[in-house]
Amino acid sequence: MASPEHGPIVLHWPEIEELLDGLDLVTAMERGFAAYSRGRAVVPPVGELLLDEAPGEVHIKYGYVRGDDFYVVKIASGFFDNPKLGLAAGNGMMLLFAQATGEPRAVLLDEGRLTDLRTAAAGAVAAKHLAPSVVERIGIVGTGVQARRQLEALRGVIDCRAVLVSGRSPAALEAFREEMSALGFEVETTLEPSAIADRCNLIVTTTPSHEPLLTAEEIRTGTHITAVGSDTPDKQELDSAILASAHMVVADSLSQCRLRGEISHALREGVLAERDVVELGAIVAGDATGRRSDDAVTVVDLTGVAVQDVEIASAVFRAYRTTG
Amino acid sequence: MASPEHGPIVLHWPEIEELLDGLDLVTAMERGFAAYSRGRAVVPPVGELLLDEAPGEVHIKYGYVRGDDFYVVKIASGFFDNPKLGLAAGNGMMLLFAQATGEPRAVLLDEGRLTDLRTAAAGAVAAKHLAPSVVERIGIVGTGVQARRQLEALRGVIDCRAVLVSGRSPAALEAFREEMSALGFEVETTLEPSAIADRCNLIVTTTPSHEPLLTAEEIRTGTHITAVGSDTPDKQELDSAILASAHMVVADSLSQCRLRGEISHALREGVLAERDVVELGAIVAGDATGRRSDDAVTVVDLTGVAVQDVEIASAVFRAYRTTG
Repeated sequence: MASPEHGPIVLHWPEIEELLDGLDLVTAMERGFAAYSRGRAVVPPVGELLLDEAPGEVHIKYGYVRGDDFYVVKIASGFFDNPKLGLAAGNGMMLLFAQATGEPRAVLLDEGRLTDLRTAAAGAVAAKHLAPSVVERIGIVGTGVQARRQLEALRGVIDCRAVLVSGRSPAALEAFREEMSALGFEVETTLEPSAIADRCNLIVTTTPSHEPLLTAEEIRTGTHITAVGSDTPDKQELDSAILASAHMVVADSLSQCRLRGEISHALREGVLAERDVVELGAIVAGDATGRRSDDAVTVVDLTGVAVQDVEIASAVFRAYRTTG
Repeated sequence: MASPEHGPIVLHWPEIEELLDGLDLVTAMERGFAAYSRGRAVVPPVGELLLDEAPGEVHIKYGYVRGDDFYVVKIASGFFDNPKLGLAAGNGMMLLFAQATGEPRAVLLDEGRLTDLRTAAAGAVAAKHLAPSVVERIGIVGTGVQARRQLEALRGVIDCRAVLVSGRSPAALEAFREEMSALGFEVETTLEPSAIADRCNLIVTTTPSHEPLLTAEEIRTGTHITAVGSDTPDKQELDSAILASAHMVVADSLSQCRLRGEISHALREGVLAERDVVELGAIVAGDATGRRSDDAVTVVDLTGVAVQDVEIASAVFRAYRTTG
């Protein structure tokens, strides 16, 4: 492993995982979202490379916060036939460079896991600022990696440990129940997303669905929903009527949510106006008000912003320098 | 260093330099340009990150050739105050991934040097296909790294060893003369670019000039010019009248040269039509004719295409697997 004097440090996942221990990713994401919404972050449009044959898609996100030490480039891939080969669908790495000189400081070979964690931490930020004061039951739609990471991340910001998870495969539901029970959650399972709407007032949707899984009439008064799964123009987990009737609709990035995610559907359908969408960072920074009453229905749409990658990669590198 | 089974190999410059020994980069670039011009390469638009304060600029180039094994992402930076700190202005790395799975295969910590080499190899491709049959004297405009690399790369495709180099600093000219003489060139120096036009019939321009350094009336019959320096919309080394009156104007990438480099200036000024521009890869592939007579004036405009990065990174990785 090269030292910073002679090139970037190169860290593999086990080393990164160790450095993450004790890091406050929720605060790191809050800092990033606030910087972003206050215009202190430089985040160019996402680069995309499509591998038609695999099939696979690669996204390149990059940016920096003005006045910080680093800029970050992240390469993240999704190859959805990988599981047939015994490989994870997701992969990638994060690269950290000095803002002052362009010198590479760190190559984080995280295999896409830091993206999972920063996305989950953003879900925790959303819940921290927008969940109702009493969460009766956490509803998780989906049983994949992000469903697990979201629930884990909520532990730090929500006291409730009652969980209802919905999925299409009984085996996947059972595996989820077992794993998450080990973390102290009381997990019930269902094959019906509508049961989630019925029994939970903090809901996180984590699927790659192209059809709405939840409808407006099902959603209870005072529910908060964080929609994580849709990050493209065609994916959709929530009926647009949910956003149309919500008391508050929040975007991680308004400019991205215009084109991708739940908000883009509602805008295209004309049931939501851009002026009614608030950025998460504006709430975190105190420039906008979050939840106003326990009766409000609130929705946060997370599409993933490069500033989150900047924050988590910087946090890992600072931890390395402190402990290494 | 991680093995391919457990993550990408990580190579530093000294290891990369060793692997380059014996690699035929001119053939690699020909292969890349031909694939590109025949539509077999996928090369999305270049990503750009500007660091206003440093000041610095970062370019992210990425792509692949259909049917190959790898896709490549390159991060290249230019921080022009770095030399004051005793650092090179350029830096960066190349990343190689499996087209089938997205798994990272190689992290090439080349500090930007592979970009210098693939750019120089492209200059050699241009000279191989477009230089007049008898080169009387090679003219190099500029005394920097790329001026050296271009001349080195020409050794493999041009017999002529007589060189005239122009620059603004007598000390830099003398350093260039000494270094290149050691490679077997007979180098004369001049402070006047017009002397290059007067005495050379193979010219390579390598400066970051924003003002034309050569004009049309100076250029001799039968001269070939490769313009390497201009890679942005505002940089310009050649008077547009040179391109207007040339018998053949060649782009490395027509879609890039529309926006950047010498050709973009001539198109904007209306003295050159896009239909009169040929791609270098079309000539290499035999889909277009190169130099037609020893009297022709030909110009190749190199702006740098990601497919070159794909080819050089792939060549280094294959050499590693063969020898490693």
